[in-house]
Amino acid sequence: MSDLVDLRSDTLTQPTPAMRRAMADAPVGDDVYGEDPTVAELQERVADLFGHEAALFTPTGSMANVLAVRSVVAPGQEVLCESSAHIARAELGAHAVYNQVTMRTWTHPRGGVDLDAVQHLYAPDMGPFFVPTAAVAVENTHNFAGGTVTPVEDLQALRAWADEVGCAVHLDGARIWNAHVATGTPLRDYGAVADVMAVCLSKGLGAPIGSLLVGSADAVAEARVWRKRMGGGMRQVGVLAAAGLHALDHHVERLATDHAHARLLAEACGVDPAGVDTNIVVLEHADAAGFVAAAAREGVRVSAVGPRTVRLVTHLDVDEADVKRAAEVLARLAELPGRG
Amino acid sequence: MSDLVDLRSDTLTQPTPAMRRAMADAPVGDDVYGEDPTVAELQERVADLFGHEAALFTPTGSMANVLAVRSVVAPGQEVLCESSAHIARAELGAHAVYNQVTMRTWTHPRGGVDLDAVQHLYAPDMGPFFVPTAAVAVENTHNFAGGTVTPVEDLQALRAWADEVGCAVHLDGARIWNAHVATGTPLRDYGAVADVMAVCLSKGLGAPIGSLLVGSADAVAEARVWRKRMGGGMRQVGVLAAAGLHALDHHVERLATDHAHARLLAEACGVDPAGVDTNIVVLEHADAAGFVAAAAREGVRVSAVGPRTVRLVTHLDVDEADVKRAAEVLARLAELPGRG
Amino acid sequence: MSDLVDLRSDTLTQPTPAMRRAMADAPVGDDVYGEDPTVAELQERVADLFGHEAALFTPTGSMANVLAVRSVVAPGQEVLCESSAHIARAELGAHAVYNQVTMRTWTHPRGGVDLDAVQHLYAPDMGPFFVPTAAVAVENTHNFAGGTVTPVEDLQALRAWADEVGCAVHLDGARIWNAHVATGTPLRDYGAVADVMAVCLSKGLGAPIGSLLVGSADAVAEARVWRKRMGGGMRQVGVLAAAGLHALDHHVERLATDHAHARLLAEACGVDPAGVDTNIVVLEHADAAGFVAAAAREGVRVSAVGPRTVRLVTHLDVDEADVKRAAEVLARLAELPGRG
Amino acid sequence: MSDLVDLRSDTLTQPTPAMRRAMADAPVGDDVYGEDPTVAELQERVADLFGHEAALFTPTGSMANVLAVRSVVAPGQEVLCESSAHIARAELGAHAVYNQVTMRTWTHPRGGVDLDAVQHLYAPDMGPFFVPTAAVAVENTHNFAGGTVTPVEDLQALRAWADEVGCAVHLDGARIWNAHVATGTPLRDYGAVADVMAVCLSKGLGAPIGSLLVGSADAVAEARVWRKRMGGGMRQVGVLAAAGLHALDHHVERLATDHAHARLLAEACGVDPAGVDTNIVVLEHADAAGFVAAAAREGVRVSAVGPRTVRLVTHLDVDEADVKRAAEVLARLAELPGRG
Repeated sequence: MSDLVDLRSDTLTQPTPAMRRAMADAPVGDDVYGEDPTVAELQERVADLFGHEAALFTPTGSMANVLAVRSVVAPGQEVLCESSAHIARAELGAHAVYNQVTMRTWTHPRGGVDLDAVQHLYAPDMGPFFVPTAAVAVENTHNFAGGTVTPVEDLQALRAWADEVGCAVHLDGARIWNAHVATGTPLRDYGAVADVMAVCLSKGLGAPIGSLLVGSADAVAEARVWRKRMGGGMRQVGVLAAAGLHALDHHVERLATDHAHARLLAEACGVDPAGVDTNIVVLEHADAAGFVAAAAREGVRVSAVGPRTVRLVTHLDVDEADVKRAAEVLARLAELPGRG
Repeated sequence: MSDLVDLRSDTLTQPTPAMRRAMADAPVGDDVYGEDPTVAELQERVADLFGHEAALFTPTGSMANVLAVRSVVAPGQEVLCESSAHIARAELGAHAVYNQVTMRTWTHPRGGVDLDAVQHLYAPDMGPFFVPTAAVAVENTHNFAGGTVTPVEDLQALRAWADEVGCAVHLDGARIWNAHVATGTPLRDYGAVADVMAVCLSKGLGAPIGSLLVGSADAVAEARVWRKRMGGGMRQVGVLAAAGLHALDHHVERLATDHAHARLLAEACGVDPAGVDTNIVVLEHADAAGFVAAAAREGVRVSAVGPRTVRLVTHLDVDEADVKRAAEVLARLAELPGRG
Repeated sequence: MSDLVDLRSDTLTQPTPAMRRAMADAPVGDDVYGEDPTVAELQERVADLFGHEAALFTPTGSMANVLAVRSVVAPGQEVLCESSAHIARAELGAHAVYNQVTMRTWTHPRGGVDLDAVQHLYAPDMGPFFVPTAAVAVENTHNFAGGTVTPVEDLQALRAWADEVGCAVHLDGARIWNAHVATGTPLRDYGAVADVMAVCLSKGLGAPIGSLLVGSADAVAEARVWRKRMGGGMRQVGVLAAAGLHALDHHVERLATDHAHARLLAEACGVDPAGVDTNIVVLEHADAAGFVAAAAREGVRVSAVGPRTVRLVTHLDVDEADVKRAAEVLARLAELPGRG
Repeated sequence: MSDLVDLRSDTLTQPTPAMRRAMADAPVGDDVYGEDPTVAELQERVADLFGHEAALFTPTGSMANVLAVRSVVAPGQEVLCESSAHIARAELGAHAVYNQVTMRTWTHPRGGVDLDAVQHLYAPDMGPFFVPTAAVAVENTHNFAGGTVTPVEDLQALRAWADEVGCAVHLDGARIWNAHVATGTPLRDYGAVADVMAVCLSKGLGAPIGSLLVGSADAVAEARVWRKRMGGGMRQVGVLAAAGLHALDHHVERLATDHAHARLLAEACGVDPAGVDTNIVVLEHADAAGFVAAAAREGVRVSAVGPRTVRLVTHLDVDEADVKRAAEVLARLAELPGRG
């Protein structure tokens, strides 16, 4: 327990001493030449975890998402997603700017799949006047909806429909590990619903840097070229991949603790813990920025993800004592008149 | 009345003999140098009709929309629009490909403004992690919803809210003339709700080629440069602008006839004519492509704008006899089992 | 002869009365649907003139160049061209902005082909670390070099080498008609050296609007889709195509007169007429902008295409009396101390 | 000395044990939030080394170059560079694809500055028809020319001229450390000629990952946003920055050894060592790919950077014994008939 409790994001975690040792000991090579054995091991392992042919290490989840979407949606085609998806809201427009793909959105209170809406939006290829839907993107868990889990049955129904109409599915699985731990759904079941995925090592898993694109061997081969073009082709990447391998060994099951912590925080703030699926609590407040500032003054850092939306995220570097202390502070602030 | 009745689109109209004379007699100059007097006259007249400072001739409505959206949305920012808007569905992704702007959408059964949804989607500028909403785009009349008119009160409410939050409004007014004639709403009232507009001369107005972007002098000056970059800086454009001026003089009020014709067709096809605001009738059919083919065999051309959506459009080159003939054919086909 | 002699560009020409009649009488259709008979006739005729399979009408030469380059160079590949080529200097960076193709350049005093330099620059496909050269672009006649003709033998040598290494050739033939008339080289000989071409109707040929991309049926089919995306898919384009057909019938051979006029102007300005191949004279002057202003005050309009480069262009609307008057004015100004 | 001598690139170096310890011990934070103290230290130190206000860590030199060029060249403007520059030849067209900037090139036998050619190419802003030159990019040392050093006097002359005309200078200093060690020119003298620079830690300096953009505080602030958009905003980057700090302390001066090794190799291969400025030797051979394969069979890895160009690069992981062994093998192969 430190003086400060930092609940702004699970990206804030420090690599543990054991993780640092793994990084320091990793055999490495030049990954631009495809010669880093630790990267190769991580890529094969992650691909296998999700039942896909191949995976590709990327410096960030944003780049993994951009490369993944590019692999299934050509310039001038469209991807459908939920309106508060990370790819729509939080990647600075990269999918338009760098992929030249257009987007249409449905809205779901928990960031989930509304298959009726998807089917209504879906545009088959009707010749060169209309934009065809090339892919549907889903995010699980869903960050801005509050770490919510989309039921795997909903994903499977989407997959079945997508197969029928010939549309790809991209799964933004930055926090798929949290969904897996929260529900017990095997990772391969998530892998089975997607043509291509992005998964992240530097959120709940606690690695300092790194995400992976997961998909077919062809998609990965093409993404490797685009990764180089985007400036994501790094050299002795094994020093980072080692952290990822360590995290897969040691930091997956412990996410259950983060989830329990999040429910404690929710209760303290008057949020129904039944709606808190994983490690994120979303709190409506009339003045999100004011709430954030007030909490910071008391040593609890949280973030505003909308003008009236405060987000709390539990993670590896927040222990039970931290949670209790934060709960006490936030409970008090949440009762102030600004609460909306 | 010709043998064939062509209801595929109001873009199909032939220039009338009087319009051709106007084109042949037009004084012209090199519009890249800003020296075409007929273009200048048209641009000033159209700007004035909508109460804006300036206007810019473009070869197509698509280019007018792309330049207009660019003038209010920077690369990496987003525009919100209805999910079946022309800018989302029918411009081959140009707003992502050429403008690098991202899009989120709401869905409205008549293509109109759902202000609650807009407000829910709206993202203020929260710093360099999130995509800010720079503009809301509306389309009036709305093509794929069936030539529907969005009530001017809804546009005014959107405008009031947009002013409050500091967001721009783009009005895709390709068929704003039809909305004006159908409702009696002055063109300036439409102009007043928009920061920037695109209006078209080659749909209901019957000119062979041409649209205009309408907006501030600054927006038009910047759009002129981007028009050149896109390959839209043409030379003796007065030959086309003259057709536009002629159309403004002679082809606006007559749109009422097209609207009456559309209602006749709707009735014949079992579509409630109360829902037919202007010159477009949208017909649900289980096999749109099959319906289109069957109608064509009987000399009536219509189009499929979705796998189950047939569209009929009345225009300058469809007279009362054509409408009666088409109504007879389509009524018969609409009763076939495929009707959905 | 008018009071003003306008030598700024051959894009300034007014359509003649006969051309206007041809436009007014043209049968037309909706060219987005591929139904305009006059456009079809023009496209077939131009394709045939150059011995290619197909052609596509575009609103401008810039768009024809952009679509042509796109058809042979993919995003991330490169095109080589002479350093003062129109595609490099005068299209506002469209080939990077819209085609995402990169460019390397050689420099030739007459804008021609330096095959040694091309071979030195040429980059074969060496795998996904290097940019491969996909095409070499040549411009004939060359605008900023002064309407110079590149000898057809040089083009043929380029073609032979390009075939050997498997590289495409784009010919920016905006003024290919001038090269043809000046040298007697058959248009088909020019067509034979290029995979894809852009040719223009609204420069020396005097049509108000229009260019064409010329190439294979496949290239044209793909370019048609991109033309729509760029906002270049116009409707009753036959009104413009008719001007082009008229120009092909009546305004090609007369370019010889423009060429003679240009030589007269060159002589008057102290430029060696032996270097004036066609209708453009380039004049070095220490203060190009000052020269332009001084000439304008005496009723002769010319343009600055560089800080020390003045350009004079003869065309359809400049007759012998105009040339004599301009020669007198320019000769006087060219002798002023600023002459560099 | 290992069995294999790998001279393909200086990017292949393994982090040393001391460097790995520095990485393992580094204090870190979330660099997306600007909270990583080691990154901050590295950025300040590198900025200071070159006398600039600020610096920004990037995952690769390619991304540093893309962000740097963007900071001085807007979409639709152009950058001038030498025709075999890394930004032209080896970044997969990223400057066109992602920055939308166009490029024109001069050719210099040693990759240097030909100021006459630059001045000839330079295009001032002449209004919205022409592409203006916004920046000149130089590369020092120059990779594909053979690790050549551009004399600082040439850079200073370029700077003086650029100041006069109001043009920016970008310095691709991926191997600026080699130029500094080879010539004794202070790093600040190199910094003084550039508005913006890219410098790399993972080539001669031996860090596993990382480059920096160096420039004004404003340029860096803007580049930080674009870095996020490109997917280069990583988290606990201190684990990498620590390697960079270690390299600056321990791996700069030792580059002199790499340079001596390169001259030994040059001599062995019959290349004039007087032309070998730093750690790269470029060898012309009629069949570069064949030469590469033959050398590999004898345990010496080199690379082909052109169909007739073989490149040897010395680095931290090549010791004197390696060099002798490689020299013996390469000398033998270089005498084979294929030598061109």
